[in-house]
Amino acid sequence: MPDAETIRYRAADSGAPAAVDLLDQTRLPGEVSRLVCTDLSALHDAIVRLVVRGAPAIGIAAAYGVTLARIESSATPDEVRETYRSAIDYLATSRPTAVNLFWALDRMRTVVDSLEDAAIAELPSRLAAEAIQIHQEDRAMCREMGRHGAPLFSECRTVLTHCNAGSLATSAYGTALAPIYYLHEQGHLLAVYADETRPLLQGARLTAWELSQAGVNVTVCTDSMAGGLMRRGMIDAVVVGADRIAACGDVANKIGTYPLAVLARYHAIPFYVVAPTNTFDLELASGDLIPIEQRGEDEVRYASGQASGVMTVPREANVINPAFDVTPAELVSAIITERGVIEEPNAVRIQEHFG
Amino acid sequence: MPDAETIRYRAADSGAPAAVDLLDQTRLPGEVSRLVCTDLSALHDAIVRLVVRGAPAIGIAAAYGVTLARIESSATPDEVRETYRSAIDYLATSRPTAVNLFWALDRMRTVVDSLEDAAIAELPSRLAAEAIQIHQEDRAMCREMGRHGAPLFSECRTVLTHCNAGSLATSAYGTALAPIYYLHEQGHLLAVYADETRPLLQGARLTAWELSQAGVNVTVCTDSMAGGLMRRGMIDAVVVGADRIAACGDVANKIGTYPLAVLARYHAIPFYVVAPTNTFDLELASGDLIPIEQRGEDEVRYASGQASGVMTVPREANVINPAFDVTPAELVSAIITERGVIEEPNAVRIQEHFG
Repeated sequence: MPDAETIRYRAADSGAPAAVDLLDQTRLPGEVSRLVCTDLSALHDAIVRLVVRGAPAIGIAAAYGVTLARIESSATPDEVRETYRSAIDYLATSRPTAVNLFWALDRMRTVVDSLEDAAIAELPSRLAAEAIQIHQEDRAMCREMGRHGAPLFSECRTVLTHCNAGSLATSAYGTALAPIYYLHEQGHLLAVYADETRPLLQGARLTAWELSQAGVNVTVCTDSMAGGLMRRGMIDAVVVGADRIAACGDVANKIGTYPLAVLARYHAIPFYVVAPTNTFDLELASGDLIPIEQRGEDEVRYASGQASGVMTVPREANVINPAFDVTPAELVSAIITERGVIEEPNAVRIQEHFG
Repeated sequence: MPDAETIRYRAADSGAPAAVDLLDQTRLPGEVSRLVCTDLSALHDAIVRLVVRGAPAIGIAAAYGVTLARIESSATPDEVRETYRSAIDYLATSRPTAVNLFWALDRMRTVVDSLEDAAIAELPSRLAAEAIQIHQEDRAMCREMGRHGAPLFSECRTVLTHCNAGSLATSAYGTALAPIYYLHEQGHLLAVYADETRPLLQGARLTAWELSQAGVNVTVCTDSMAGGLMRRGMIDAVVVGADRIAACGDVANKIGTYPLAVLARYHAIPFYVVAPTNTFDLELASGDLIPIEQRGEDEVRYASGQASGVMTVPREANVINPAFDVTPAELVSAIITERGVIEEPNAVRIQEHFG
């Protein structure tokens, strides 16, 4: 895994404000630089602009973000709680699809709600502790996902992945990439094909970068090449992360995941989803109910990057830019969580997994 | 159709050399500019760099290109023929996959081979006439493909296309887009989804441009979005061109065509290929025998364009860049040529079509 940590946190200390220190993923792979956020709006903006992205990492960053709320020294206990609740509500508006964001913010809200007036002075440190706890749990979960997932890949030589569900999307190890890193440590060297993942190229920029840094053999292809690779027998398994999983096992993930699942089925290649249990939204019966973020047109219109000023789609043409798609459970061979493997997921098996 | 003609030709005239005048498709949509080639190597380079691209247009440009060969006034008849044959061999090295290139050059070679010594002075004008003839035939074929294809789309409201197989890829009307233009003229307005078509964005840059110019409603999506659109019932048919079709009906076309065919089959959406008969290579029994051009890595490595200097794939990662893939005949609902429609193509039906 790369040295560059995705998220670092510095708690408030004798006057110095708390800070959430993010690896700026919009600048990779050309530039390894960090963005330090010391106020809520900077952190909110960092999530919107994808400085930090990936479902688990969004949750962790937002949890830390809550601690950036400024509390007046004269505030009453109710005012303190209200300030934190507002911060939580505000951070929840940053991105709509990844449920880990709401899960992490709900944990922070529980801390806010649970503290009595007499202990209110402890709330900032309790919140920091909770965010650190979420972060540490994520590290442990990534490793467990790697361990549970690894046996599924024991016969594989090559895997295809889409977008970035690696250490950059989490705190370590990643989700989709966790079994790959785990096996790599055991000396089972998988070759990885990484879809470049238009429009924002997380596969080319981030997955290829972190796998290269970790010494994993990685080859970037455009999203349109994956089908041809499968046809030529060059892909043994597909593995992706998830932004939200419905109670029936339908999976919302980066746009372009669904066609890979169809292609994998057509070629009789297993299609695996790796995600911690906090990615499940058991209140949603179907993936069709998952809100899908529609991002700005310019991500598609300026294929050379918005900074280039070169529009690659003529102004007269329309553009769409859904950031995610939904893969129905029947196309998923297995979902791997930190608790184990759900083979051929459906509502009953998922309920058992949580039971 | 746009005013800008894909290919113009000026025959040699009283000392002024012949010239092949190309719309520079590498600069669209931002800039509508032309490149005038008056020597063989400039034209060869224009084909390699995709200034002119699309299977039929490559054939037409190369045919005209033969007339750019410089003949010494002292040359013997055999030397004249040899000069033209060398020109033909040289132009044939420009791109490997589109068979129309070799078909057009073979027609030019037949003219070279057929002229007797006594008439050798006529060879330049005969070659120019043959190239003009190829160009004119292409115009007529595009229109016929539109006419034959149109009834297949009579119930459609939306079609998805990939890459550019429109007027920019031909001399007029296009292949895949011919039925759409034909219906548009009749007042049946289809909405078109255009895959952007990484790595070189011919869909975003060229298809969206020419359809917009013609007043056709067009929406650009990244290649990875097509599957999700199909799942949501937003695509009534898929239509693409072809670079080479084997005797059994297997179709080589722009990378990303094959996954669309699999997705169309999965969603029970018809998948149509539109191509003139000169796109068939009846000597190849199977699509697996079609040579697939591997283009330079930098088209993938520099997603922001090579001029940007910004590498979006880290140097340590590998890259692949096959320019085409092969769709097996069993996934093709029909092939439309200037002669008519081959439903569910196979070797027997294709032989009948040519019989």
